[in-house]
Amino acid sequence: MSVTQPAGFTASGVAADIKSSGGLDLALIVNNGPRFDAAGVFTTNRISAAPVRWSQAALENGQAKAVILNAGGANACTGTPGDDDAAAMAGHTAQALNIDAQDVQVCSTGLIGERLPMDSVLAGIPRAVAALDTNGSEDAAKAIMTTDTRHKVAASTGQGYSVAGMTKGAGMIAPGMATMLAVITTDAVVDATLAQQLLSEAVRTTFNRADSDGCMSTNDTVVLMASGASGVTPDHDEVQELIRDVCASLARQIIGDAEGSTRDIAVTVHGAASEQDGETVARTVTRSNLFKTAMFGKDPNWGRIISAVGTTDAVFDPTTIDVAVNDVMVCRNAGIGEDRSLVSFDDREVTVDIYLKAGEHEVTVWTNDLSYDYVRENAEYSS
Amino acid sequence: MSVTQPAGFTASGVAADIKSSGGLDLALIVNNGPRFDAAGVFTTNRISAAPVRWSQAALENGQAKAVILNAGGANACTGTPGDDDAAAMAGHTAQALNIDAQDVQVCSTGLIGERLPMDSVLAGIPRAVAALDTNGSEDAAKAIMTTDTRHKVAASTGQGYSVAGMTKGAGMIAPGMATMLAVITTDAVVDATLAQQLLSEAVRTTFNRADSDGCMSTNDTVVLMASGASGVTPDHDEVQELIRDVCASLARQIIGDAEGSTRDIAVTVHGAASEQDGETVARTVTRSNLFKTAMFGKDPNWGRIISAVGTTDAVFDPTTIDVAVNDVMVCRNAGIGEDRSLVSFDDREVTVDIYLKAGEHEVTVWTNDLSYDYVRENAEYSS
Repeated sequence: MSVTQPAGFTASGVAADIKSSGGLDLALIVNNGPRFDAAGVFTTNRISAAPVRWSQAALENGQAKAVILNAGGANACTGTPGDDDAAAMAGHTAQALNIDAQDVQVCSTGLIGERLPMDSVLAGIPRAVAALDTNGSEDAAKAIMTTDTRHKVAASTGQGYSVAGMTKGAGMIAPGMATMLAVITTDAVVDATLAQQLLSEAVRTTFNRADSDGCMSTNDTVVLMASGASGVTPDHDEVQELIRDVCASLARQIIGDAEGSTRDIAVTVHGAASEQDGETVARTVTRSNLFKTAMFGKDPNWGRIISAVGTTDAVFDPTTIDVAVNDVMVCRNAGIGEDRSLVSFDDREVTVDIYLKAGEHEVTVWTNDLSYDYVRENAEYSS
Repeated sequence: MSVTQPAGFTASGVAADIKSSGGLDLALIVNNGPRFDAAGVFTTNRISAAPVRWSQAALENGQAKAVILNAGGANACTGTPGDDDAAAMAGHTAQALNIDAQDVQVCSTGLIGERLPMDSVLAGIPRAVAALDTNGSEDAAKAIMTTDTRHKVAASTGQGYSVAGMTKGAGMIAPGMATMLAVITTDAVVDATLAQQLLSEAVRTTFNRADSDGCMSTNDTVVLMASGASGVTPDHDEVQELIRDVCASLARQIIGDAEGSTRDIAVTVHGAASEQDGETVARTVTRSNLFKTAMFGKDPNWGRIISAVGTTDAVFDPTTIDVAVNDVMVCRNAGIGEDRSLVSFDDREVTVDIYLKAGEHEVTVWTNDLSYDYVRENAEYSS
């Protein structure tokens, strides 16, 4: 069900011959109303892809009726012809749905710096429209996969309405935003202004804190569409929590399926003087290649953790930091703590807890280890 | 010859049983005067090692007569006992040389978070003193190697004096400072204030622009000692150039011997609005794992380069950037340029040139690719 679980939505995924490998590669999610409130969060990369620029402009009125998404090409760094291609994707989708092009969001993922095979894309769009169905969400989620090994969906139910989402991740996962593409749907009654607030807040602490490899894509997009089909105006805190839960589940699934990873690592900073400090410290650790290779090697090498912490300007006393790996306090007061051989690496999930003792804030950033397979996938797969 | 090429210096390297693998692991460089002017540049990591704290304090008077260096242990994150160990290394060296402990610089490299085997270290010091010789520089350079595959020395000759240096690198090479340990010697007459200016300026554009894996060590130290034994007061510009040349050669050797690397990559930013902008852009590209794995895979994937550039706040127009890989302009005006299949990867050295078209500044940062062997060395070698 996923994105079609909330009332008012249909979806489809078709094989349009965009991916050279074949398979599903064109997805469509349609909001059939009665309301068309929408919000988006986009990459902050200044080298943004043509579909991002299209979608940002089209969303200025806070309305969207459809999202067309393709794998097999990012349509990034393709100049004015790329902008024309993104507009054509919106235009053809709008024509087939009998709506305005401005009501169509466009998302693309794949290799940067190559034109899309537009003959295939445009021929696929009417077929995607014809395939629209309330049971089409699984095909849609599969059609946006690139190096993902499984499709990623989530849903959460509130008082008389629900929230659902789908995403794809795998590589180039870093802030600004931690996903390539995600679509969130709800049948709650949420006006566009509130939708943007809810989505931005949810993304800030979920997708934006999943940092697989520190690389921010040109194409990152999260779109939220609210159909209002339930007729329910939700409690603010409840709908915020539901949207956050769906985003958190999707972000967690991205980390769990990151390219070549063998470990999902939650780096939690405790006792930070500010949320910003906590995020800075956590993110700096998650981006240390020495830390990430140590995790791959099942080595609770806290020296690599604390030396990363030491490069930040966060508030802390360099002589009082504690660090635990999988609940073993291997570093006390920035010095030798429990015997590091006590740390078990039996599970895929690893926890790293850093105690700054400088305040009350706590922040978790998720990342992966750095493995042979990460190198293999990214050395051999041009993306 | 290297560090003993300038008159007034002796050196030694001995096997003191500090490294578990055996081999040379304790080095000593002595300045026999007549002058003892000295300068240092140290890691800016706030989690600095005990020997760094010792050396910074000892150098406050601008004088040093000896540097004692060990591999086999970093003496970092070892608390007050670690500070005592660093002081004991200085004290025992001073005693054997009949000088003050404050005139001894201490450098350590190896695993963080473990005490040094002080019995071995202290027993080795008198033997290092006994071995001091003008021909001892090669043993000294070898004694500081960790995962280095070769020792690293450089020298340059001016009008009546010379400058020389030795270093070790291999891993955890990033700014702040790009080496673990380096000692630079000269027999020019250079007072301590000038020595610090000359060294800081040289380090800024050499060691600090060699960024192998983005990880800054707790132990980075560059010490310059000036014996004045030539009696020559050098021309300012000439001695600056010589010190820079020696530092540049040593930094380049570190990149050429970085853990598991198959490519040395010079990322040069042209047309930056400021030197800071140029450095920010170059460094951001050198730290992209997607870029580094593409280089390992001989893939001139300019999308990964330009998407890294786009994450910076440097001044540029996102629609006019050009990128060349090994002199093939694969990206023009942020879009598709020459055919990427024209790029040859026959040589170990790779050049990436990024044209921001925003000003007159040019900055080069050196880095390496990200290979299977980088992962292997850092997953299996606890450092």
